[in-house]
Amino acid sequence: MSTKNSDWYEETHENIALRFRLKERLFDAQSEFQKVEVVETCGNGKLLAHDGMIMVTEKDEFIYHDMITHVPMFTHPSPKNILVIGGGDGGTVREVLKHPSVEKVTMVEIDGMVVEASKKYIPQTSGQLDDPKVTLHIQDGVKFMKESKELFDVIIVDSSEPIGPATPLFNVDFYKDVAARMSDDGIVVSQGESPYYDMKMQKVLVEILAQVFPKVHIYNYCNMSYPSGLWSFTYASKGLCPLKDFAPARVDQKFQYYSPEIHVGSFLLPQFMKDEHGTHLTSLPKLGWQ
Amino acid sequence: MSTKNSDWYEETHENIALRFRLKERLFDAQSEFQKVEVVETCGNGKLLAHDGMIMVTEKDEFIYHDMITHVPMFTHPSPKNILVIGGGDGGTVREVLKHPSVEKVTMVEIDGMVVEASKKYIPQTSGQLDDPKVTLHIQDGVKFMKESKELFDVIIVDSSEPIGPATPLFNVDFYKDVAARMSDDGIVVSQGESPYYDMKMQKVLVEILAQVFPKVHIYNYCNMSYPSGLWSFTYASKGLCPLKDFAPARVDQKFQYYSPEIHVGSFLLPQFMKDEHGTHLTSLPKLGWQ
Repeated sequence: MSTKNSDWYEETHENIALRFRLKERLFDAQSEFQKVEVVETCGNGKLLAHDGMIMVTEKDEFIYHDMITHVPMFTHPSPKNILVIGGGDGGTVREVLKHPSVEKVTMVEIDGMVVEASKKYIPQTSGQLDDPKVTLHIQDGVKFMKESKELFDVIIVDSSEPIGPATPLFNVDFYKDVAARMSDDGIVVSQGESPYYDMKMQKVLVEILAQVFPKVHIYNYCNMSYPSGLWSFTYASKGLCPLKDFAPARVDQKFQYYSPEIHVGSFLLPQFMKDEHGTHLTSLPKLGWQ
Repeated sequence: MSTKNSDWYEETHENIALRFRLKERLFDAQSEFQKVEVVETCGNGKLLAHDGMIMVTEKDEFIYHDMITHVPMFTHPSPKNILVIGGGDGGTVREVLKHPSVEKVTMVEIDGMVVEASKKYIPQTSGQLDDPKVTLHIQDGVKFMKESKELFDVIIVDSSEPIGPATPLFNVDFYKDVAARMSDDGIVVSQGESPYYDMKMQKVLVEILAQVFPKVHIYNYCNMSYPSGLWSFTYASKGLCPLKDFAPARVDQKFQYYSPEIHVGSFLLPQFMKDEHGTHLTSLPKLGWQ
């Protein structure tokens, strides 16, 4: 490895750190809300970070975006009007647009710099943000939810960690506004933190959802650029069950991570997560073999 | 963090690295086979590494040991005679002994230094190695398989990466010997590498198994101290299906990671793994709701 660049991009936590070998620093600026960085790594493509926390790498962003998008989009029988809160890199909108039922996608990102940096440096995720079905608001998602008069079929809260600008999204008032803007078969999926390293915050989010929605679930996926890998999304609805109301036959396309099997498997939790969340999570239907 | 120790224990790969904040180096020696280290980390307990690759940390070893052990042990209707190849830290034997049907556990570890270091510094994993049901051989697992005359119900290949002493375990001749020593309802589960970072080696292992066994599956878990988190075990048998022959009612104890749900969920794969392994993997029964 003597010919290799010895610099790393490091995400540093109190007791652990993740390092990606650095090829080139492409963008580094302080927005109104946070430090926004884009770097080119060796082997993992471009990497976007907010305040030193890795949001996406080109190599593994398919996992995050497949799972935050296709789980609710294939559970809903015919999602037409979609709202994305956050998601400045554009990857979630890209995946939403793969569903032919979609008529309109509204994306509300608080930090215009994230969108601009992603458009300039990461077309892999941001390339669909100019699609005619997409309306982009550079605006506070909390304020947007309060003022919107629309009803959405699927709402995706594609936020960063609850430090910095995403903090007000981890709040019961925000989710009451979300519920008010959801159709009767509406689903809201949110970035749900790490069950290993941030169970406290994951529990806060699940408890908030349990106050507002009759159906609350968690599903897991493995993100190779987040600490520990194991990470969760929350799922809440007014009625639709992510297993019983999911019809595998609806999955008419092939994705890189998402499959009908992983849709189901991701809701089947390790014991410590069941114990931590207890009755705040809705029981799943019993699985069997056909 | 100014009062914190600024040293890290780092597992370094070509383009990524994992760091654990270091409290104290406890053991560092070169055995006949590899460099063996034990360090005390801040926040993740003691950490065992071979040749710079992290094997276990006290904080998350429950995940690895639950999943390598309880999946085959609860699929088999009544496992009595168990063989562990490798597993020098003792965590797999500890979990095997939780099954009351077990009459005998044979563990074959090539590197006595790993066992001694684990016994001295990591009683959390090694504490059951002196159990009267356990016979420990410090011996080459390949040679043991060739010479053994016993039949085992469950064989667990708890090996390190296929570099260094574990290399001969990733070989078709070894698995032919394994099959010869398995009862008709026998199961062999093996450490199956990373589908993100070492799909090449995972495919080699699956192809070997498919040459020898009628049933071959992969199941995933998330190990927070391995690069990317997502990691796999392979499952092979002469007939028992890990889903159809698994009776959730058999799970009469509570574990920290393993649950009847995660037993099932871990076999439900992301699309890219299904594509990579293709027909080498046996089809799973179709899931439904009861």
